[in-house]
Amino acid sequence: MRWNLHSTAASQFTTWYNDCMPSYFVETPACRYPVSVERGGLANVRQYIPERAGKVFLISTEDVWQLHGEALAREIGHPHEILFFPGGEPRKRLAEVETLAEQMVARGGDRSSVIVAFGGGILTDVAGFLAAIFMRGIPVIQIPTTLLAQVDAAVGGKTGVNLACGKNLLGSFHQPLAVIIDPAVLDTLPEREYRAGLFEIIKHGVIADADLFWLMSREPKRVMSHAPDVVDRMICDSVRIKAELVSGDEKEQDRRRILNFGHTFGHALEAETGYSQFLHGEAVAWGMKAATLLGAMERLLSSEDKGEILRCVNSYGPLPPVAGVDPARIAARLKSDKKTVQGKIHFVLPERIGAVKITADVHEQFVAAAIEEALAC
Amino acid sequence: MRWNLHSTAASQFTTWYNDCMPSYFVETPACRYPVSVERGGLANVRQYIPERAGKVFLISTEDVWQLHGEALAREIGHPHEILFFPGGEPRKRLAEVETLAEQMVARGGDRSSVIVAFGGGILTDVAGFLAAIFMRGIPVIQIPTTLLAQVDAAVGGKTGVNLACGKNLLGSFHQPLAVIIDPAVLDTLPEREYRAGLFEIIKHGVIADADLFWLMSREPKRVMSHAPDVVDRMICDSVRIKAELVSGDEKEQDRRRILNFGHTFGHALEAETGYSQFLHGEAVAWGMKAATLLGAMERLLSSEDKGEILRCVNSYGPLPPVAGVDPARIAARLKSDKKTVQGKIHFVLPERIGAVKITADVHEQFVAAAIEEALAC
Repeated sequence: MRWNLHSTAASQFTTWYNDCMPSYFVETPACRYPVSVERGGLANVRQYIPERAGKVFLISTEDVWQLHGEALAREIGHPHEILFFPGGEPRKRLAEVETLAEQMVARGGDRSSVIVAFGGGILTDVAGFLAAIFMRGIPVIQIPTTLLAQVDAAVGGKTGVNLACGKNLLGSFHQPLAVIIDPAVLDTLPEREYRAGLFEIIKHGVIADADLFWLMSREPKRVMSHAPDVVDRMICDSVRIKAELVSGDEKEQDRRRILNFGHTFGHALEAETGYSQFLHGEAVAWGMKAATLLGAMERLLSSEDKGEILRCVNSYGPLPPVAGVDPARIAARLKSDKKTVQGKIHFVLPERIGAVKITADVHEQFVAAAIEEALAC
Repeated sequence: MRWNLHSTAASQFTTWYNDCMPSYFVETPACRYPVSVERGGLANVRQYIPERAGKVFLISTEDVWQLHGEALAREIGHPHEILFFPGGEPRKRLAEVETLAEQMVARGGDRSSVIVAFGGGILTDVAGFLAAIFMRGIPVIQIPTTLLAQVDAAVGGKTGVNLACGKNLLGSFHQPLAVIIDPAVLDTLPEREYRAGLFEIIKHGVIADADLFWLMSREPKRVMSHAPDVVDRMICDSVRIKAELVSGDEKEQDRRRILNFGHTFGHALEAETGYSQFLHGEAVAWGMKAATLLGAMERLLSSEDKGEILRCVNSYGPLPPVAGVDPARIAARLKSDKKTVQGKIHFVLPERIGAVKITADVHEQFVAAAIEEALAC
């Protein structure tokens, strides 16, 4: 991981972007696949579909399809069907996966079929999981259309659905054939969704790349105005970090777990507010603040770095109001998090900007205090 | 594969059984696990549970639990919970998997949990699939209690559930930590279920082991009276064959497919009769007859061997009545089989006793004729 904090001057961005719109590779014991980042990259989908593939099932949401569907469909170059997922966290359930599977069979889906998942993080999770279990597994190509899905959900092979009692509690590791990231589609993304994705990028900065963090910290205006050089740079850096972490630890038994920075607290907030008030990225933003406060209380993190992280997160705020959320209930929910192992909660806490530590060794009263302070700040 | 047809004299069985109650090993690129066959082997479950495992979830059906549950539970030696699956093909659906998953979370299930699947083939398929997707995968120990599950379903890592439009259309390959086969539990198995399992053993003989076939052909009386030497022998041979085939081809892309002998026709019959008239093994028995007849029509199989196969299957009959089943509808259903690849149906057809061939190159009128004749014989 890079560690030289201020090496990249703003003037370098344009050059950098013009010269190298790159592909990254995820490499696991069982497979190797490209994650391409390219403006207009949608048009290259055909090259990733195996020549001998049977029917291609494009799975999308109606809103995404209306904006970009035609552009994608005309490049498939294969017999294909379009299936719609209704979208929304409450629909991210097994029943919807079953409905899509029944539709696939009815339209001639078989073991030679390929799924193209085209949408935000919920869609790529659901369609990826469908691919993982349809006839015990068929290939999927992920084309994420939200910033959050581009820098996080669609890279790394995690797929899944929610249970009534918690998020992403059922799922599979199912690596895609390829991930196609086209930053151009973000220009039609609602601003709130765009901001939600920015928080995952800040996360990548905090856990593994101080340069990226300082870029986000320095450039909120250009980021928010979709300046292509900054946007492409922050996506590429995020994808590189995610691809590196996944390649070293596909099943999240070791270093990949640092990607959960902000997620333990964030999931509890999402669950407590019924998955309806916060976008995932917003909940993670709040969770990062709580984890940062906890890290400082545990004396892992300097108060200067704590201040920088909170300031950076807040500069992309505001988050939805947390008034009425009971800190004690958030604390109780932490214990049912998926990452809990035999009752122990493992926290990802920052040690400095660019480096985090995983620990279950925290003071319970600090956890409660961090939740309370994060709800207030 | 062995090829010497009559080498094993009946007198050898007892010796063989006394000397070597063996473990077989399944070896895939990702793992290696034992399949132990032992009378009273239930009592050894503890040795297969990882020392650092969290809670153990015993998943079973009420009938199996009533007969053998206590014997198992007292040997677990780990904190455990018991969850019941209602059982039956119509309940082999995603909704039941979801219910079990919710119960697991409510009772403290997490990523360190281990599932012990204790029941027949439907149970081992469902509980195995639950293990495959619970928090993206936890370990499972399979303890099959029907003959069919012992010689087929529980070995090889195939797990899954049905869709309304077809059997086992959703699932995962999820290899267990271990498979424990205790032939003693078969003594409480209803005769019809026992016979259904015998057909899968005959299948193993036809596809890969003429000795096993002739044993089954010669000894229906001793098989039906549960003579331990014959029972243990036929189970061991079946497990050995299945373990060999799975080890060479975990994902069923090549040689493992010969295990589907009788299944293409059998699945169509099951679907056509609403999964309510035939046990899976019975449908496979009928399917083997259809495939044998088709093999003879296609001149792959001698009429003598055809006669031997039909005679052997029928000696463990009779099957439930097929009166009223429309041959044309069976033929139509073949086309929606999971093994269909781009509309082509791949049949596993016998070439001689102990050897089969996979082919999509058959005459459509022979398929229709084989269905009709099998419905009549």
